[in-house]
Amino acid sequence: MRDRLAAWLEQAWVRNTIIGVILFNAMILGLETSDPLMAQAGPLIVALDMACLAVFVVELALKMYAQGLGFFRRPWNIFDFVIVGISLVPAAQGLSVLRALRILRVLRLLTVAPRLRRVVEGFLTALPGMASVFLLMALIFYIAAVMATKLFGDSFPDWFGDLGASAYSLFQIMTLESWSMGIVRPVMEVYPYAWAFFVPFIMVTTFAVVNLLVGLIVNSMQDAHSEEDTAATNTYRDEVLVRLEAIEKRLEDAQRR
Amino acid sequence: MRDRLAAWLEQAWVRNTIIGVILFNAMILGLETSDPLMAQAGPLIVALDMACLAVFVVELALKMYAQGLGFFRRPWNIFDFVIVGISLVPAAQGLSVLRALRILRVLRLLTVAPRLRRVVEGFLTALPGMASVFLLMALIFYIAAVMATKLFGDSFPDWFGDLGASAYSLFQIMTLESWSMGIVRPVMEVYPYAWAFFVPFIMVTTFAVVNLLVGLIVNSMQDAHSEEDTAATNTYRDEVLVRLEAIEKRLEDAQRR
Amino acid sequence: MRDRLAAWLEQAWVRNTIIGVILFNAMILGLETSDPLMAQAGPLIVALDMACLAVFVVELALKMYAQGLGFFRRPWNIFDFVIVGISLVPAAQGLSVLRALRILRVLRLLTVAPRLRRVVEGFLTALPGMASVFLLMALIFYIAAVMATKLFGDSFPDWFGDLGASAYSLFQIMTLESWSMGIVRPVMEVYPYAWAFFVPFIMVTTFAVVNLLVGLIVNSMQDAHSEEDTAATNTYRDEVLVRLEAIEKRLEDAQRR
Amino acid sequence: MRDRLAAWLEQAWVRNTIIGVILFNAMILGLETSDPLMAQAGPLIVALDMACLAVFVVELALKMYAQGLGFFRRPWNIFDFVIVGISLVPAAQGLSVLRALRILRVLRLLTVAPRLRRVVEGFLTALPGMASVFLLMALIFYIAAVMATKLFGDSFPDWFGDLGASAYSLFQIMTLESWSMGIVRPVMEVYPYAWAFFVPFIMVTTFAVVNLLVGLIVNSMQDAHSEEDTAATNTYRDEVLVRLEAIEKRLEDAQRR
Repeated sequence: MRDRLAAWLEQAWVRNTIIGVILFNAMILGLETSDPLMAQAGPLIVALDMACLAVFVVELALKMYAQGLGFFRRPWNIFDFVIVGISLVPAAQGLSVLRALRILRVLRLLTVAPRLRRVVEGFLTALPGMASVFLLMALIFYIAAVMATKLFGDSFPDWFGDLGASAYSLFQIMTLESWSMGIVRPVMEVYPYAWAFFVPFIMVTTFAVVNLLVGLIVNSMQDAHSEEDTAATNTYRDEVLVRLEAIEKRLEDAQRR
Repeated sequence: MRDRLAAWLEQAWVRNTIIGVILFNAMILGLETSDPLMAQAGPLIVALDMACLAVFVVELALKMYAQGLGFFRRPWNIFDFVIVGISLVPAAQGLSVLRALRILRVLRLLTVAPRLRRVVEGFLTALPGMASVFLLMALIFYIAAVMATKLFGDSFPDWFGDLGASAYSLFQIMTLESWSMGIVRPVMEVYPYAWAFFVPFIMVTTFAVVNLLVGLIVNSMQDAHSEEDTAATNTYRDEVLVRLEAIEKRLEDAQRR
Repeated sequence: MRDRLAAWLEQAWVRNTIIGVILFNAMILGLETSDPLMAQAGPLIVALDMACLAVFVVELALKMYAQGLGFFRRPWNIFDFVIVGISLVPAAQGLSVLRALRILRVLRLLTVAPRLRRVVEGFLTALPGMASVFLLMALIFYIAAVMATKLFGDSFPDWFGDLGASAYSLFQIMTLESWSMGIVRPVMEVYPYAWAFFVPFIMVTTFAVVNLLVGLIVNSMQDAHSEEDTAATNTYRDEVLVRLEAIEKRLEDAQRR
Repeated sequence: MRDRLAAWLEQAWVRNTIIGVILFNAMILGLETSDPLMAQAGPLIVALDMACLAVFVVELALKMYAQGLGFFRRPWNIFDFVIVGISLVPAAQGLSVLRALRILRVLRLLTVAPRLRRVVEGFLTALPGMASVFLLMALIFYIAAVMATKLFGDSFPDWFGDLGASAYSLFQIMTLESWSMGIVRPVMEVYPYAWAFFVPFIMVTTFAVVNLLVGLIVNSMQDAHSEEDTAATNTYRDEVLVRLEAIEKRLEDAQRR
């Protein structure tokens, strides 16, 4: 019974129907942002949204029944569960953020469309290799935030008033957005040597980002290279060595006789 | 008759004449942007532009006759047809945009100059490999636009008033242009936690763009690598294996006798 | 005695304790940036900071005793020595910068955590290969700074008043921050041909930066490629050649008899 | 006589003396930018500058005599000749630009220091491979400049008043500097659909720049790869094939007997 349900849920037309419902729901949630449309046909739009949500809840419930406890062992299932769960939390508490988060439901497309899922999985596999550099950047950011708060916090409380404000300003500076005209030149009017803090900060973080990029390129190039190519090379090499050995052995036998 | 016309059109001097007419037309259309020149010699400039257009129309008509229905099977022909066609639409309807689009005729250079055509074809072949990532980015943009409209639309109608405005603002933020000083800092004055939406958005889209870039590099490196090199390697390997087999067979024969 | 002390210092739990003290110190130094917290529990926070510093001083002193003069031969030890030394300089001289520099102590994490140390060492090994391009960029910056000071210094003393101001402004322009709207357009109001200086400057420096990046990628790709792969290939090739020689020799022997 | 002079000029200490004079001249020209210094020691600084220039003129004259007509066949010599020549043009004509250009003399370092010269030559060899893409970008810029002038020139004469102004503004937009807040948002207040021109322009030019970068990386990677490695592989393969052939022949001979 469970296996048949699981097989039925995996069928192409069921999957395509779900994709269709997701896309329709995305459109509905898009229409919800238009005030005149909501004034005209608000109840209909909300009802259609509810219908889509109902489809997702039913599908997820069936999947949970079909897969049993194994359901929570697959990360994508948990992802679906959380995304749909958010929509079910009553948003009547004045938390408009929760209502805004309902659009995340459209991310279910990642779970259902295999091509998109593979792209995301590709992104995620790249992350562990970047962990050391990320840790280093977190360290640099923390140190720079503490220093900036102590050095410039008193005169520029909006930008460097506390650790959070400093971290945000330093992130902005790392993206090079208005770093000089917007932040460093005004700071230099009070502290003329402020460039000696900010210019090295920009150089170090940019260099770290560049190294992240280089690491990513080298890794994915090796991945792309090694699999097929190396396998073929190894097969060939083994065969050559086996044959050479056979020839040598035959010659040895011939000589012995 | 048709074949002779097709061969005549392919001749080097015909091709070069067309390139010359395109470059001359580009210059004429450039001169048209100068008001004092148009006041002095407007009719002459317009007449020369018309003459160039006439040359293109005649060339295209000859090509269509020479190639028959096959004309529309080649994408570059359709490109030429559309570009020249735009110039023939009467622009007297107050649509100054149509008049501005006439400069697109200069893009015919892409069709005629083989080197440029190859560059464009190189660009286009890179696109399908990027389709999945583009789809993912479109999804992220749509979700982010809906969320930004719902969260910040009421207080900042200029930037996040509707889906279109939000998408444009998010594109600006993705390019990192004035994202903080221009957009996010003002938004944070009303919604202090706005950074929790925008900073992850910047990180995710930047990471996706970086992955696009990495994918492009890896792909074109493999293309450059594999063709010649792999062919030589395979030829060599086949020869080695064939010879080894021959040697083994001879030895077997020798032993049998 | 010294060897035993050195071995004791290398033990896992000693190392982990030091990492713990560094992280705790980082937190303490972070808390120090908060004015209300300092008003409430200032003496305690300062005392805890002192305690951490004491641990570092003792650890460093033990290391110096254990390693003797060899201590100063390892760059990471000198790094630790300088960082801890900065914290010991009395900051009562009104030099608040020295107090701010104490957070650099957290960088000791680089010395103690092997993974982070390797990332930094990777960064540093990339530097020598970039020396020539850096030298070239320094040359370009110096020449551009002298030219900008002579050409625009009189009219724009804030941006190009002396060599230092010009170098800073050119660094800002190289990062593309507000280069046009903020600097070059105002300059062009006085010197209409200023673009002929700044646009080539942007192109040349951007191209140099891109070449740095390309060099980094190519280098680290070769490093990643060559080690394992080339070794395996060479081993295989040597074996094939040795075997072929052996076969040939046997055949020669056989023919001679 | 000539040959001996040429050999003398190539000696290490002559070369190093010239490098010293260039660096000293660079410093002198830097000091010239400081008004208080010029007020105090102006004549001395100018005299030292003249002395350096004299050294360069003499060195160049000797080189020209030693190499005869061959002097003008080497590009680096012509580069030196032009750079030193600029300094000799009397700047008394109110052309302060000529005086500013004298700092270009410091670029002679590129000619004299072999490492820097190699970096520049590396840059220059990368250029021809980029010619097609540059041509394409020039075409896109010309078309976009004509269109922008026709569409937005009337309302925004400062930014898009003529072809030159448009090209500059589009270059600024391509570097993403203030493209939205500074240019496109104000333009959209008059022409609400201006984004349909600028957003595709940004995408196309960015994509072209990315392709330039990818091309550079792939090229320099192939250059780095092929030389040594391919030679070793080919030597090995030839040897294996020659030996296999020899073995086969011996076996054939043995069977015939």
